[in-house]
Amino acid sequence: MKKLFFDVALKVRFSETDAMGVVWHGNYLKFFEDAREFFGLHYGMAYLDFYDNGYFTPIVKSELQHKASIYYGQDVLVKINLEKHDSAKIIFNYEVWNTTLNELAAVGSTMQVFLDVNSREMELAKPEFYEQWESKQAWQ
Amino acid sequence: MKKLFFDVALKVRFSETDAMGVVWHGNYLKFFEDAREFFGLHYGMAYLDFYDNGYFTPIVKSELQHKASIYYGQDVLVKINLEKHDSAKIIFNYEVWNTTLNELAAVGSTMQVFLDVNSREMELAKPEFYEQWESKQAWQ
Amino acid sequence: MKKLFFDVALKVRFSETDAMGVVWHGNYLKFFEDAREFFGLHYGMAYLDFYDNGYFTPIVKSELQHKASIYYGQDVLVKINLEKHDSAKIIFNYEVWNTTLNELAAVGSTMQVFLDVNSREMELAKPEFYEQWESKQAWQ
Amino acid sequence: MKKLFFDVALKVRFSETDAMGVVWHGNYLKFFEDAREFFGLHYGMAYLDFYDNGYFTPIVKSELQHKASIYYGQDVLVKINLEKHDSAKIIFNYEVWNTTLNELAAVGSTMQVFLDVNSREMELAKPEFYEQWESKQAWQ
Repeated sequence: MKKLFFDVALKVRFSETDAMGVVWHGNYLKFFEDAREFFGLHYGMAYLDFYDNGYFTPIVKSELQHKASIYYGQDVLVKINLEKHDSAKIIFNYEVWNTTLNELAAVGSTMQVFLDVNSREMELAKPEFYEQWESKQAWQ
Repeated sequence: MKKLFFDVALKVRFSETDAMGVVWHGNYLKFFEDAREFFGLHYGMAYLDFYDNGYFTPIVKSELQHKASIYYGQDVLVKINLEKHDSAKIIFNYEVWNTTLNELAAVGSTMQVFLDVNSREMELAKPEFYEQWESKQAWQ
Repeated sequence: MKKLFFDVALKVRFSETDAMGVVWHGNYLKFFEDAREFFGLHYGMAYLDFYDNGYFTPIVKSELQHKASIYYGQDVLVKINLEKHDSAKIIFNYEVWNTTLNELAAVGSTMQVFLDVNSREMELAKPEFYEQWESKQAWQ
Repeated sequence: MKKLFFDVALKVRFSETDAMGVVWHGNYLKFFEDAREFFGLHYGMAYLDFYDNGYFTPIVKSELQHKASIYYGQDVLVKINLEKHDSAKIIFNYEVWNTTLNELAAVGSTMQVFLDVNSREMELAKPEFYEQWESKQAWQ
């Protein structure tokens, strides 16, 4: 399957840790959100680009597996990639690296759909503006 | 100054603690939000009652002082009161009690204003529905 | 597979909504956390019971599928069940119901492992206190 | 009063917005946290520097005033400054600017104290490592 890749460096907030001293597991979904946004800004298809074209793109599925903990003060790199699909779905995969320890902390994926901003109905086919954007990217 | 009082018991979520092992200071504003909502449900003037009457009531000022820490598993009671004012402001005061230790953990206050849902302009006078509600309460 | 069941009613916090007007997808993991905790308090095996026996039980895997949105002010019921396993894993399943609309909003699951509080090493076999607790439950 | 200044540019996360479409008021305390941390990294006195010297520095007081809303996609700049005090307190002031609109969105302040990591007792005098750090800064 063809993909588009991007790497996003993040800092852990103290408020993102929990009483075990590590990043609370649910906060990885915020790392994923950050990664999608920086990916989108880099490739010219960020959240507000969808919105300006008339679409929300809500998450309909998330998967998250933890391999190791991340402590406050450790550096994080999210390696994100977008899969090229025929269907009207946006599927990202993620690796969350603890770059302080050079250790893979988590992997995961998310699936988004296209929702019409006004009707909030789901689109069954990819919107044209998105297909045009896809056709211009250097998929690998 | 006349006031209306209510007590709200809450549980600490593990995700609300931080790497010091205690509730992260900013999460007390979520306790305040919970307390306002249960206060509002009890007295018949909750968030959606304002909204149904055409108003948002955003927070324009918050103050928060911490006296002691709250650990995960300890029980919390928020003692909330609403001040009676002539101006178009909604002012709540809060005491956050650690009932496991019978200890005052924090005190604080918030100020809200009335914003027209459509124009997002601030109201300079109290809306009539709110004055009517005020007139029916047993202020002490 | 045998299971233990519990239902947990929750309220949506305003701070849990996002700019689409609905509960932000990642906050469902907080609903899961609440459901596990109330399940644990009901059955006598909550977070602090694990801790008092010398174990952290971190989440190592989460899955989450969204079927419908939940708006602020709508009521939530989480139907949670624990699977009975031979291995040293704690696997919960969840259904998040929007009881205002009598609509299934999301389904999901989490997997936890046993970590020694001091060494932070993962246990390969179920701890004895946990097996004793399991043997007393009315699995269905 | 003498001060040390720093500016920190931030991005708003979608998860930080609420159903009014704007940044939820409590999330400004996360912007403050980010600002303190980048201030600390710049001046060589970040959270982990305190910790490595044997101190937690919990927030004991927060004040926050909102002047205008910040919508998702707008850029944020936090202008933070540290006040020079004789007492064993760390007092920061903050201005949160919406740089997309060149508009002041919020102002606030926080007070921290020094807590011994082991005893969790509050220090009544400034620790020596901190006074040495203070003496090397270019206060204005």
